[in-house]
Amino acid sequence: MCGIVGYIGGKEAFPILINGLKRLEYRGYDSAGVALLNGSLGNFKRKGKVAELEDFVNSENCSGTVGIGHTRWATHGEPSDKNAHPHNSMGDLFSVVHNGIIENYARLKDDLVKHGYSFKSETDTEVLANLIEYFYLQSEEMTSEAAVQLALSKVVGAYGIAVLCSREKEKIVVARKGSPLVVGLGDGEYFIASDASPIAEYTSQVVYLNDEDIAIIQRDGFTLKNVQNNPVSLKISNLDLEIGALDKGEFEYFMLKEIYEQPLTIEETFRGRLREDYSEIVLGGLLNVFPKLEEAERIIIIGCGTSWHAALIAEYLFEEYARVPVEVEYASEFRYRKPIINSRDVVILISQSGETADTMAALHLAKSKGATVLGICNVVGSSLARETDAGVYTHAGVEIGVASTKAFTAQVTVLTMIALKLAKRKGSIDIQEYKKLVNELSEIPEKGRIILESDQKIQKIAEKYHEAVNALYLGRGYLFPVALEGALKLKEISYVHAEGYAAGEMKHGPIALVDDNLPVVVVAPEDAYYEKVVSNIQEVKARKGNVIAIVTEGDSGLKELANDVIEIPKSHPAVAPLLAVIPLQLLAYHIALLKGCNVDQPRNLAKSVTVE
Amino acid sequence: MCGIVGYIGGKEAFPILINGLKRLEYRGYDSAGVALLNGSLGNFKRKGKVAELEDFVNSENCSGTVGIGHTRWATHGEPSDKNAHPHNSMGDLFSVVHNGIIENYARLKDDLVKHGYSFKSETDTEVLANLIEYFYLQSEEMTSEAAVQLALSKVVGAYGIAVLCSREKEKIVVARKGSPLVVGLGDGEYFIASDASPIAEYTSQVVYLNDEDIAIIQRDGFTLKNVQNNPVSLKISNLDLEIGALDKGEFEYFMLKEIYEQPLTIEETFRGRLREDYSEIVLGGLLNVFPKLEEAERIIIIGCGTSWHAALIAEYLFEEYARVPVEVEYASEFRYRKPIINSRDVVILISQSGETADTMAALHLAKSKGATVLGICNVVGSSLARETDAGVYTHAGVEIGVASTKAFTAQVTVLTMIALKLAKRKGSIDIQEYKKLVNELSEIPEKGRIILESDQKIQKIAEKYHEAVNALYLGRGYLFPVALEGALKLKEISYVHAEGYAAGEMKHGPIALVDDNLPVVVVAPEDAYYEKVVSNIQEVKARKGNVIAIVTEGDSGLKELANDVIEIPKSHPAVAPLLAVIPLQLLAYHIALLKGCNVDQPRNLAKSVTVE
Repeated sequence: MCGIVGYIGGKEAFPILINGLKRLEYRGYDSAGVALLNGSLGNFKRKGKVAELEDFVNSENCSGTVGIGHTRWATHGEPSDKNAHPHNSMGDLFSVVHNGIIENYARLKDDLVKHGYSFKSETDTEVLANLIEYFYLQSEEMTSEAAVQLALSKVVGAYGIAVLCSREKEKIVVARKGSPLVVGLGDGEYFIASDASPIAEYTSQVVYLNDEDIAIIQRDGFTLKNVQNNPVSLKISNLDLEIGALDKGEFEYFMLKEIYEQPLTIEETFRGRLREDYSEIVLGGLLNVFPKLEEAERIIIIGCGTSWHAALIAEYLFEEYARVPVEVEYASEFRYRKPIINSRDVVILISQSGETADTMAALHLAKSKGATVLGICNVVGSSLARETDAGVYTHAGVEIGVASTKAFTAQVTVLTMIALKLAKRKGSIDIQEYKKLVNELSEIPEKGRIILESDQKIQKIAEKYHEAVNALYLGRGYLFPVALEGALKLKEISYVHAEGYAAGEMKHGPIALVDDNLPVVVVAPEDAYYEKVVSNIQEVKARKGNVIAIVTEGDSGLKELANDVIEIPKSHPAVAPLLAVIPLQLLAYHIALLKGCNVDQPRNLAKSVTVE
Repeated sequence: MCGIVGYIGGKEAFPILINGLKRLEYRGYDSAGVALLNGSLGNFKRKGKVAELEDFVNSENCSGTVGIGHTRWATHGEPSDKNAHPHNSMGDLFSVVHNGIIENYARLKDDLVKHGYSFKSETDTEVLANLIEYFYLQSEEMTSEAAVQLALSKVVGAYGIAVLCSREKEKIVVARKGSPLVVGLGDGEYFIASDASPIAEYTSQVVYLNDEDIAIIQRDGFTLKNVQNNPVSLKISNLDLEIGALDKGEFEYFMLKEIYEQPLTIEETFRGRLREDYSEIVLGGLLNVFPKLEEAERIIIIGCGTSWHAALIAEYLFEEYARVPVEVEYASEFRYRKPIINSRDVVILISQSGETADTMAALHLAKSKGATVLGICNVVGSSLARETDAGVYTHAGVEIGVASTKAFTAQVTVLTMIALKLAKRKGSIDIQEYKKLVNELSEIPEKGRIILESDQKIQKIAEKYHEAVNALYLGRGYLFPVALEGALKLKEISYVHAEGYAAGEMKHGPIALVDDNLPVVVVAPEDAYYEKVVSNIQEVKARKGNVIAIVTEGDSGLKELANDVIEIPKSHPAVAPLLAVIPLQLLAYHIALLKGCNVDQPRNLAKSVTVE
């Protein structure tokens, strides 16, 4: 959510910054800008995508070997040229790019106005730029990093920032609290970014900043301390990121590529964890915490958005097989109430990026109460991975599409493995049932490939319904969260108001929406709920709703009753979410495409929600 | 959900049946019908409201002193004349009205077809009528009640039925399983109905049938047994129902009347429970189970629809004050998975009608596992009230509007009282805080009256937004469930696709829907979440959404930022849901009215969801 880049070294900064912003554009894309240090502080910014910025700036003088850039997801003030970053201070001494929210910006702004400052934008970031300048001008001995430290000491909120000072032309100051920053170490050059994707093509040596770290980056060296000016130890990590993963390849959109990657990424998630003969699950990362999990009287699983849906599936799995009560919470709700949590509890946090602000705050709260905290995330080296007691990486590879697909199925795969392994360790699952389920899990990639063959059929169905302005998604049991996830996909990328419901809840309100304009997507494979779901479909049909049913291969009953059916291979109900979600992802994709939407960069959204 | 009436006695049945159907119409209104026994079995039925049936039948011969009637909420087969009840058997020997779902109807139908039966409708009920006739014709000695018993022994599913037989003209056979039935005992006459409201004007002596009871009602007597033909004991109850409560009075709709009743009904809920000086809560009905509640390691609260929203508020209350982990479940989900539940658990079930099919099934499951089960319901003598170990009536009075309003606030009031009382007994609340909260609770009716004075202002706001086809409702903490409830009201009665979200979740998907057409209702009184909610509003405004904010009296910040504000009196956050929901009820009401919707009988919906 918002992307920051920076460069200092021997090359021209502008092309590197633009290239980096394009890599980061999935984090926000309502406006973009760069600032370059040459004679003075050149600041170029523009509402719209990075490509528009590039066209605009190319005609200007944009030389310089030190620069910062930003692609924005608006929080304060609508997307516009003037609200775009970087923000210069009033005296043009500083230029700042910022990711996060300064919560006390209104009060700080009032104070600055009293000191004679005026403002050009509605943003909280401009307040920060002026505050830094204000402190910088208080003393002749002041350095830019000291001014940044002073300003940050006044700030309540979250930030990842990069700062240029026109009087200190060989320096970029960066700092973070709550919003991620990575510094890449090149040969006489440094790269700054919100995540590693813009850096990978230049160097594999990176430093992940921790909260309250401040780094002073000069052409000839790099100093790390914290905002209180105390030294901190420096850890250099080795980046393991294939550049190919950052390209779309033969696909029109990253999202479609990522949907199609799922059979492979699920296999990747298995790697080293499912025994060759599919008789056993090995989760080395959890070895030390399994005793805690076995003793837990309650497991709390926390996520946001798609990760929250994965958590709901996990609730059903853990309760059915490991026989431990599970509470699923929205991170944003959990962190602000007085949750009951203690050192006997295990808290599992799920986040694709490992940087989700609310999830990180929930992690800190759970840790402060003494709970054992486990992380499930996709981005290696992310804050979540670094701050949990133990965890499992989903290994889905870089996910660029804003609407999560392969990260979701990887999360569900990991959670299924944990639930089954825990059940086996606790003896709450029959060993034959365990082996059967492990084997069922191992068959998911192959069955997923079969579902992908229905892509054209799903496209045809999308053509029938793409003009609908509303949709309902229904499912029961393990497939209730899948209905939620299917609806979220459509909502995110096509702006169709789709809503998911437990099918049994339909009669308690949502059925009022049903008429002959409403598509109702029902996840109805053959399982213990089948008859009940068929009754729900009868009720929808009795009110002339259009039913699109996800059914088990060979189902004949629903072929007659539903308007359209999409078949998926037969599977055990406990692993069915991994299959049933794929047609829903494709349906959302095709509908969005038919509506002319930018699937990878849906309006208003951004990947990696690092503001609260 | 579906209403059944019946009459046998000395008077003309038709006017009594029609009058009864009108009283029951809130339970379903897509078609209606009556069957009368005079010379033969006269069967009159019609798609549409009861008034249409009345117009239609008045021209026919409808004399007779024995009859049954039905108002339908379609499950199998669309609303139509032929799918309306009563359903006659093929040979016109039997006429049946039925509430519930026969799950194995397809198989039973196949068998009957093999025996030469043909079908006129798509309903499961016609299958039952023919099955009864089939058994009746197997032997000359067969009685209609024996044929009903045999037929019901083959049925999987839920039913409340009333049956006429053209060869036994002085008899109505009724039976129930899962769907409520009440028999009123008059002077030489009997009244049958799905609930007491059509009976109250004739007699106060009633018998509530239990599951698997069958009653043979004759002009001169009443026999009760069970469907296995064993005797069961008869309990006559005294009905306490004011007829005035069944009329709309000065209000255009029941819903508006019930919204306005809330200050009174909440006082009614307090009666005898809040000490005069508001220093103590007395809950006599729970006295014996409080020790269980105090020992509980976990409380599970179960409901559907609006009751589920009340449960979510209770979760926050119980966890914050009584410091006991709470799990909230949809009844329809809880009952079908393998929930972890044992004799140490306390399960609280919430249902306005006390008859909700899924909630009752969840109750039976929890009981079978040995859990202590508590009920919170509004209808005295309902199944929930009779089958739980202990409970609290909400005493909101009869609720006729299909969209629940006063029952919701009464539920939340009861749950707040239980949470606080439990907290006091456990010593997990400071005694001053307890007294303060009890006092805050006692002030709700007066503050509610103040909110009702904003009705005209809310109507004006409704005029601005009533053409919107979508809406978002956002809240945090105690007010997150209120956002869900506000959205549900609008969805139910205006068919606007409104969706509630925890405000912190907005960035994880739903914000994609925001554009200048979308009204976003934000519940944002001054509380600990205020700043965070203001940030959320900033994000909506940055994308040109229209914000309607529910704010604390005197709030100035949001008056500038939001497009419209509705003020509510200041209150403690823990009791704020009782206030904040009222403007949302009124907003939904006025929008529905402006759209020309029938507020009390929204399409597709029905009160008291007695099918699964």
